[in-house]
Amino acid sequence: MNFSIIIYIIGYVLKIEGLLMLAPTLVGLFYGEKEYLAFLIMAAAAFAIGILISFKKPKNQVFYAKEAFVSVPLSWIFVSLFGCLPFVINGDIPHITDAFFEMVSGFTTTGSSILTNVEALSHASLFWRSFSHWIGGMGILVFILSVLPIANGATMHLMRAESPGPQVDKVVPKVKDTSIMLYIVYTAMTVLQIILLIIGGTPLFDSVTLAFGTAGTGGFSIKSLGLAAYSPYVQYVVGIFMILFGVNFNVYILLVRKHLKQALRVEEARWYAVIIILAVALITVNTKYLFPTFEEAFRHAFFQVGSIITTTGFATYDFSLFYPIFSQTILVFLMFIGACAGSTGGGIKVSRITIMAKTIRDELSRIIHPRAVKKVRSEGKAVDHSVVRSINIFLMGYLGVFAISLLLISLDNFDFTTNFTAVSATINNIGPGLAKVGPYGNFSEFSDFSKLVLCFDMIAGRLEILPMLVLINPRTWSRPFKRRPKVR
Amino acid sequence: MNFSIIIYIIGYVLKIEGLLMLAPTLVGLFYGEKEYLAFLIMAAAAFAIGILISFKKPKNQVFYAKEAFVSVPLSWIFVSLFGCLPFVINGDIPHITDAFFEMVSGFTTTGSSILTNVEALSHASLFWRSFSHWIGGMGILVFILSVLPIANGATMHLMRAESPGPQVDKVVPKVKDTSIMLYIVYTAMTVLQIILLIIGGTPLFDSVTLAFGTAGTGGFSIKSLGLAAYSPYVQYVVGIFMILFGVNFNVYILLVRKHLKQALRVEEARWYAVIIILAVALITVNTKYLFPTFEEAFRHAFFQVGSIITTTGFATYDFSLFYPIFSQTILVFLMFIGACAGSTGGGIKVSRITIMAKTIRDELSRIIHPRAVKKVRSEGKAVDHSVVRSINIFLMGYLGVFAISLLLISLDNFDFTTNFTAVSATINNIGPGLAKVGPYGNFSEFSDFSKLVLCFDMIAGRLEILPMLVLINPRTWSRPFKRRPKVR
Repeated sequence: MNFSIIIYIIGYVLKIEGLLMLAPTLVGLFYGEKEYLAFLIMAAAAFAIGILISFKKPKNQVFYAKEAFVSVPLSWIFVSLFGCLPFVINGDIPHITDAFFEMVSGFTTTGSSILTNVEALSHASLFWRSFSHWIGGMGILVFILSVLPIANGATMHLMRAESPGPQVDKVVPKVKDTSIMLYIVYTAMTVLQIILLIIGGTPLFDSVTLAFGTAGTGGFSIKSLGLAAYSPYVQYVVGIFMILFGVNFNVYILLVRKHLKQALRVEEARWYAVIIILAVALITVNTKYLFPTFEEAFRHAFFQVGSIITTTGFATYDFSLFYPIFSQTILVFLMFIGACAGSTGGGIKVSRITIMAKTIRDELSRIIHPRAVKKVRSEGKAVDHSVVRSINIFLMGYLGVFAISLLLISLDNFDFTTNFTAVSATINNIGPGLAKVGPYGNFSEFSDFSKLVLCFDMIAGRLEILPMLVLINPRTWSRPFKRRPKVR
Repeated sequence: MNFSIIIYIIGYVLKIEGLLMLAPTLVGLFYGEKEYLAFLIMAAAAFAIGILISFKKPKNQVFYAKEAFVSVPLSWIFVSLFGCLPFVINGDIPHITDAFFEMVSGFTTTGSSILTNVEALSHASLFWRSFSHWIGGMGILVFILSVLPIANGATMHLMRAESPGPQVDKVVPKVKDTSIMLYIVYTAMTVLQIILLIIGGTPLFDSVTLAFGTAGTGGFSIKSLGLAAYSPYVQYVVGIFMILFGVNFNVYILLVRKHLKQALRVEEARWYAVIIILAVALITVNTKYLFPTFEEAFRHAFFQVGSIITTTGFATYDFSLFYPIFSQTILVFLMFIGACAGSTGGGIKVSRITIMAKTIRDELSRIIHPRAVKKVRSEGKAVDHSVVRSINIFLMGYLGVFAISLLLISLDNFDFTTNFTAVSATINNIGPGLAKVGPYGNFSEFSDFSKLVLCFDMIAGRLEILPMLVLINPRTWSRPFKRRPKVR
């Protein structure tokens, strides 16, 4: 294991985080809040420590998948740790486990909260919470990759360890170009949403934080009422943008490059649209009786479906309390399906689900017509065996982490629905679940131990399981090949 | 599709079922109940119809996997349909959907019941219910395979479509020999259990029905109180035998052939033991505070663990009401893990779980030491790629059926825990779940539609998913190659 380069990367990440923390500092100063000081202190601390440990570029540039699989989750953990300390220092979230949970939830764009009264927070803290969604949405390292001065091979390993979804397609050949392109699209869309919200009469601070939460598919809100505190116009704007941010970003890059036809032919995006339309239609019909008008039933269905499938987690309505179980079950499914690969959303991802469905369909064909052997196809291309294999391993790891987490948090003795949906909501980076952790509930009652388990799940879900398993695997840290002469 | 041979097989199955239904007829006559008549009528009907449609051996002996994958689930459906009609005729279960549910639950050795007062049934009906567990435990067709006069290739296809678990090992080369051997071991163990129960002072009728429910890992009881109605001695005997019937039958065949060392080295059986010991220990510690003595806490933990992991479903205690959630969650896990492959139990199977765990472990090794490529091993042999592949397909199909069933039964608007565990309990062939369908609840409140969905799940679970998917796949029934000249 090349520790020096891992430390170097973490240092680089902390340096950038220090700079980013100047934003909430300025917000605090602007609103004349004393809470700005905590952000300034930690900005300085993160920057100084970052500079200190990434001062000298390491000589040993050996960088394999292993190094990437360790440095990515470690970066996420350190960023969350440094990022949560301002909350502890300024007293907005005095308990450190709570603050860490909140920050992991922010960076992983989960949006699960331990806050019981979000309105009590300072503007600086509220801004930082929402800003963390925006930073984490595109990936902490994707941003750094565009500036990190290490070899292209290493950046590819890093990108692979961080980026969501199976990689069937590669739109832009060079990693650095991709990450710059992604950030341009991402920023442009965020700005567009802010403008549309302001046009609708939303205050600037609300518009910015809402857009951050939407773009990162995070879901932190600055109001206890969530999106129910805003007008139908705002709900529609946020609803539409949530769904847009859940689309595979390849589609936008294709659009920017004026490949309209190709963009419309992206199979995953089509399935994503089909699932959304179907879910909205079913829930609207199923919940019509709850609302005075059809529009209202439709709006809430549209919003909740968009919010859950993109794993954002904003809510306009307490579905866990009032929706019939059929509609709730659809929402639980959407939690698992998740958004498109290569979007800011979490979950299992639409492309994985469709490839799995096609694998079953083909197996049945094989039994029915043994002589007609076909290969599973996705995005018009035959799916390579290694893609199917990695999906299977993802699925097994996912179920394993899910099961063990469910068992561990059940020690708190909450009801089964709460536990089951708490794990779903965190491992899929959604935010709210059902029962105690429903859209208008929160995670504050869990024990510190359970909160840490759920933190693990949030990062594991965001990084698609394997990196966290590598990190905690004792064999990663042993050195069995040490005494053997190196053969190259 | 060779329809003539499928009909021939179903006819053969019905003929045998007609003969088997003479047993409850005799029991009814012995107890002087008028309910015997319904069994006699249906025995005659099944036998007559069976003779009629299997009178002439079909000329076309073409028999591929497709034919097996259709005739096995159809056999199970027809057997359940004919088997449930006596209940309707004699009035013990007047509503046909209920009777069908009860019978599917019986043959698939699930043990989920729609009965609210089991003591009201006649002896004949109680006997038939429990007897169906014993018949279904080893497989409806496994028995028939030993007498069915068709080619060995066809019987192999049939056995594969019906027998539970991934086939890593093959102990006895010829299919017919295997099925005879299996039935000898199965019968001997059942008789031994009956004798032990009688020695403990249990009435003959109770002993026989209990042993049937244990051997098939079914779980129907003739008392509303289930196993709580019996002495600790009986509970221990049943508990031990449940666990024994959940062991891979290869172990017993090896023992019969005096390969003691090999028998002790069966890896799946060892993991099965480890899981049971761990689960019993954790639950005993976790529930000690509920009971006056350690023995009682241990006994209930031991019994419930044995009952759930083997997917039997007998209960001595209402764990869904009184156990802490941690212990309940362990039991929910055991529901999914299930017993050993090649036993009478259901679930995902221990060997599948261990192979999945090893696949993840090896993937992590690959990342950590890319040059040390290893193959997953099970039972001392390298696991063939096709085995891993079939496990993946099983897992995907399983999750798919699970999800769709959960959605469909949620239309009844029961709580999430009830729905989730109702599907778990049926697809894994266990019997009871939690909440409304807990060990002292029942499935009577579900709508007819939901009951049929759960019937599908029970058969799908018993036949390990794929056969039922082939059966309902429209492409199975279309004839796309009809117009093409046959190339051989």
